[in-house]
Amino acid sequence: MNVRVGVIGVGMIGQDHIRRITQVLTGGSVTAVNDVDAARAGQVAAGLPGASVHASAQDLIADGNVDAVLVTSWGPAHEEQVLAAIAAGKPVFCEKPLAPASDACLRIMEAEMAAGRRLVQVGFMRRYDAGYLAMKAALDGGDLGAPLLMHCAHRNPSVPPYGFTTDMIISDSAVHEMDIVRWLFGEEVAAVTVLKPRRSREAGADLQDPLILVFEMASGALVDDELFVNARYGYDVRGEVVCEAGTVALADVSEVTVRGASGHRGRIPADWRDRFIRAYDTEIQDWLNAVAAGTSTGPSAWDGYAAAAVTDAALEALRAGQRTAVSMTERPEFYAKTQ
Amino acid sequence: MNVRVGVIGVGMIGQDHIRRITQVLTGGSVTAVNDVDAARAGQVAAGLPGASVHASAQDLIADGNVDAVLVTSWGPAHEEQVLAAIAAGKPVFCEKPLAPASDACLRIMEAEMAAGRRLVQVGFMRRYDAGYLAMKAALDGGDLGAPLLMHCAHRNPSVPPYGFTTDMIISDSAVHEMDIVRWLFGEEVAAVTVLKPRRSREAGADLQDPLILVFEMASGALVDDELFVNARYGYDVRGEVVCEAGTVALADVSEVTVRGASGHRGRIPADWRDRFIRAYDTEIQDWLNAVAAGTSTGPSAWDGYAAAAVTDAALEALRAGQRTAVSMTERPEFYAKTQ
Amino acid sequence: MNVRVGVIGVGMIGQDHIRRITQVLTGGSVTAVNDVDAARAGQVAAGLPGASVHASAQDLIADGNVDAVLVTSWGPAHEEQVLAAIAAGKPVFCEKPLAPASDACLRIMEAEMAAGRRLVQVGFMRRYDAGYLAMKAALDGGDLGAPLLMHCAHRNPSVPPYGFTTDMIISDSAVHEMDIVRWLFGEEVAAVTVLKPRRSREAGADLQDPLILVFEMASGALVDDELFVNARYGYDVRGEVVCEAGTVALADVSEVTVRGASGHRGRIPADWRDRFIRAYDTEIQDWLNAVAAGTSTGPSAWDGYAAAAVTDAALEALRAGQRTAVSMTERPEFYAKTQ
Amino acid sequence: MNVRVGVIGVGMIGQDHIRRITQVLTGGSVTAVNDVDAARAGQVAAGLPGASVHASAQDLIADGNVDAVLVTSWGPAHEEQVLAAIAAGKPVFCEKPLAPASDACLRIMEAEMAAGRRLVQVGFMRRYDAGYLAMKAALDGGDLGAPLLMHCAHRNPSVPPYGFTTDMIISDSAVHEMDIVRWLFGEEVAAVTVLKPRRSREAGADLQDPLILVFEMASGALVDDELFVNARYGYDVRGEVVCEAGTVALADVSEVTVRGASGHRGRIPADWRDRFIRAYDTEIQDWLNAVAAGTSTGPSAWDGYAAAAVTDAALEALRAGQRTAVSMTERPEFYAKTQ
Repeated sequence: MNVRVGVIGVGMIGQDHIRRITQVLTGGSVTAVNDVDAARAGQVAAGLPGASVHASAQDLIADGNVDAVLVTSWGPAHEEQVLAAIAAGKPVFCEKPLAPASDACLRIMEAEMAAGRRLVQVGFMRRYDAGYLAMKAALDGGDLGAPLLMHCAHRNPSVPPYGFTTDMIISDSAVHEMDIVRWLFGEEVAAVTVLKPRRSREAGADLQDPLILVFEMASGALVDDELFVNARYGYDVRGEVVCEAGTVALADVSEVTVRGASGHRGRIPADWRDRFIRAYDTEIQDWLNAVAAGTSTGPSAWDGYAAAAVTDAALEALRAGQRTAVSMTERPEFYAKTQ
Repeated sequence: MNVRVGVIGVGMIGQDHIRRITQVLTGGSVTAVNDVDAARAGQVAAGLPGASVHASAQDLIADGNVDAVLVTSWGPAHEEQVLAAIAAGKPVFCEKPLAPASDACLRIMEAEMAAGRRLVQVGFMRRYDAGYLAMKAALDGGDLGAPLLMHCAHRNPSVPPYGFTTDMIISDSAVHEMDIVRWLFGEEVAAVTVLKPRRSREAGADLQDPLILVFEMASGALVDDELFVNARYGYDVRGEVVCEAGTVALADVSEVTVRGASGHRGRIPADWRDRFIRAYDTEIQDWLNAVAAGTSTGPSAWDGYAAAAVTDAALEALRAGQRTAVSMTERPEFYAKTQ
Repeated sequence: MNVRVGVIGVGMIGQDHIRRITQVLTGGSVTAVNDVDAARAGQVAAGLPGASVHASAQDLIADGNVDAVLVTSWGPAHEEQVLAAIAAGKPVFCEKPLAPASDACLRIMEAEMAAGRRLVQVGFMRRYDAGYLAMKAALDGGDLGAPLLMHCAHRNPSVPPYGFTTDMIISDSAVHEMDIVRWLFGEEVAAVTVLKPRRSREAGADLQDPLILVFEMASGALVDDELFVNARYGYDVRGEVVCEAGTVALADVSEVTVRGASGHRGRIPADWRDRFIRAYDTEIQDWLNAVAAGTSTGPSAWDGYAAAAVTDAALEALRAGQRTAVSMTERPEFYAKTQ
Repeated sequence: MNVRVGVIGVGMIGQDHIRRITQVLTGGSVTAVNDVDAARAGQVAAGLPGASVHASAQDLIADGNVDAVLVTSWGPAHEEQVLAAIAAGKPVFCEKPLAPASDACLRIMEAEMAAGRRLVQVGFMRRYDAGYLAMKAALDGGDLGAPLLMHCAHRNPSVPPYGFTTDMIISDSAVHEMDIVRWLFGEEVAAVTVLKPRRSREAGADLQDPLILVFEMASGALVDDELFVNARYGYDVRGEVVCEAGTVALADVSEVTVRGASGHRGRIPADWRDRFIRAYDTEIQDWLNAVAAGTSTGPSAWDGYAAAAVTDAALEALRAGQRTAVSMTERPEFYAKTQ
């Protein structure tokens, strides 16, 4: 089966997913696009034979040539678009955040539950990364015993000097660890503390960079997460889970080792595309496969909600300067763990 | 454009390429199959909606629903099938060896030249491996100076105790290094010597395992290549090119590092699929793209011929116990280097 | 010059230093021993030709054949013994802690200042470890920019099931990081927080293991320090300093890499002796050299005091469950930084 | 016991051993020196309180204040000096080569056997290197099965553009592998072949650099040894022994890993001192200990002879351009293996 995808929002990430579906993956095609910038939508559609341009997200969702919807618009628009897809009974992949506010996520969950089947997948692509998958396999294998704590680091080479705020380090960057630790540990985050180390002089004047977030998991396991968005030297995502009988860590993965004047060296990814391009490929292929099979296997609306709730707590912890409990509803049976 | 592929030979590797084209890659479909075992052909076709089964390779090649041919039959059949595809003017991907004998390869080259355009690609998938690609980029980057020598190792965990001969270590295993060193160094192999180390007791009684092959390149650069097909511990392909100002080596690539009772450790691939699955994916995608574009970018009939000529010399060197020059025709202008 | 050393306390570490001075290092000899267990002192002296046994630490210090004093008794006895050595005008090397309480350390500092010259060295051997030395050289080299934070882990395979308390994780284990971060960053620790992750079931019933300590440096730089004394798999001390333009981390140092059934692997030290034996050698050699030269180059009484003050704060932070400021006197000019 | 050492030849390596004995190691002192350059001998002695200067090696050996002799003169002088030490019944440590010609080594063996006890140790310091020791332990541990082949590389950053000959690559550099493979495999080298790769343009006009030597061991095991004395990037000694069930390789050992603009990197030693300084320390300490104990545990005159015989074969193989058998006498019972 060929899944006909309608894409809402054709900025950088939207265009990248379109390239992926049309030039890399199998089983999907892009048949409709929409964007708040109609000219841009038209330009993108021009490169997609047979694709229509819709004036509104609602129109796109209603299009009979659209089997499934990919939401890559900006965050504040997600709720309305995802709800519309649910209302139309169409599977929808929504880039993170599912919605900026956790109550909006709850409304999406309610709509999905009312629809009676899982339609929503949220774009937490790290779950599809070979490194995290191997880490989870090691944890689930049992040889290492129970996980007790985790050390994470999430380093970007740089962010724009203006417009990127400390809140965004939490909502845009740390949100990836918020999801991945829930998935790795198989439990929710109960509380968050935010620590403020000495600032880098490379950071913009108003930016607290780096940050350390401490997540307390429901079991008591602790996660310390270094966020550093002006780390200069590369894009470096690291993690080590410490268990009762050993540890497992993401490895440096360089295809070759060069021996030269600066010693023996391996490369570090230049940016997030470089590091996670295969995870994105796998994520979207998995979604296309699930849509074709009429199932849903990826991160759910519940995962989107949980990440939003932890984000809320982290932002409050940043403001208040103290440990902040995560406030979450009970997990509905509808979203029972499947993995 | 969707490339409609006819597959000749649907054994293990043929089925794997079919899976790849239908479930992993984009831009291709399998519309026809043929196999010496008609029942097997029928079973495979049953899983391919709309695919026809042909009684002969000739029929498949003639099928108007076949745009391009994938030859994964056994080696002795390759020549006739590839020639037939050329005669039909259809692009053909042929698994290695292009033909077991170098003169058969020459006949294929002549037919292709007579056809006036490049139609043949040979299945040397290592050229599509991220490790070798990074190695070649480092060499071509120029910082390392001229390459002077290379150390290779090619280890398989095991081969069947009977039926796998010492000649096959050369023709089936070492052939991969014969191609990759030509590609890395950008020159032909001029002579081969075969050395016989102490035999492993894990090897079958008639098998000289391991072997060391020494390739002399046209420039005088030397390559030593350890072949060890009962290495037990894993599938391990290694290489280091030593240049005037530094070296570049394939790295151990393990997604995670585990710290436990046996120290800190990373995984080694279990077999060739595990190690090269992505290279195969990239190789076939590249071929599909080239077919759709009406071009040819991969290893050519000349590359298939050169590997056959080096194989001939290596088998003779094994028998004679001495350095053996590689006997090759001049490279036709038609096959001028493009990279 | 041969430095004649008197050793007070000949338990495990005392005997190890005696072995070091007599069998490994140059420029020293052991001429006198004392221990609360007179029989043990006699047994040790029996293996040291010409060494005398003293009934009291005071007698040993007064011995004309003793040029310098090595204090490896238990912590509560340190103050009196170190003060006596200072009173006798003899250089004294004191294993950590200089004294269990910070006010005792202050009294030692006052006595030393009254004596008018540096006589005391405290046994923080990590400063002599090749790994930490290379780390400090990288930091001081300037290419990495200012240090902003550090991640530490300090893992022991196990501790006795009874008798080892949570306080001792701080006073005996974490004290090493308290000193090394002061030395690496070149500044004092301003505050400490203690976090309690999920407990390992391998730990004794009353032990909170692992722990995470967070040190706030005077500059605002933060250090998170995982202490895990029942980590099972080995003795593993790790550290990464994150700077404005890059990071520097202690490397896994294994002499060989084995490729076998469990992958490619390197060894992890079995215990602290295995890990730090050379640091101990270098430390004591450096002390002997300094004594012979009439100088003092190692960790000072001030360093011993600072570590005690940070220990006090950490123990309070553990009890109180909150961030605790370190209470310290001003650094006297006498102890001005020399490196 | 203090071993009083007389040093014959106080050039670079002689002075380094003097520094080692007087400033690093225990149990030895330097009481006499001799050099063909009397002025240099006098200068060195001036820094050694109580040391005498002798006009001839014979005088030094006869000196009653000399317990043992360290020969660091140039190679052609070794035979006479070592024979004189044997005649005087004094233990003698001789830097490699024991003698440039194998027949001279035989005469030394005969003299030592006539003396009735082991007096000679040859300076093959790699046997004391932590890496090679761990490699040998892994081989002897038995988990890896029988060793079948070994890959070695021996790279120097550079040699002087004039005066360093291709023969010296064999006699000065490769001699280290000649000894270490004998020791690792526990057997003799039976034959040698020398291969000549493409020359580096960094090498002097008359120098064949790099070289590959192939050693055939008595068991049939093969060793390929890359010698590259103008490798530019650093001093890099590598080795991997391939066994029936796995391999063991010297690891890159860098104290720290730096993450910066050139990726993640570790250091490579700058020169042979940097790489092997601890092996030299251990070697000489072991010799001093053995002299004090009246035993001999290090590389023997037989080992010196064997290395000379393999060197002879390798030089002949270089000239003749073909495999050359090593011509050796039977190993006398006197030199039976002790490890």
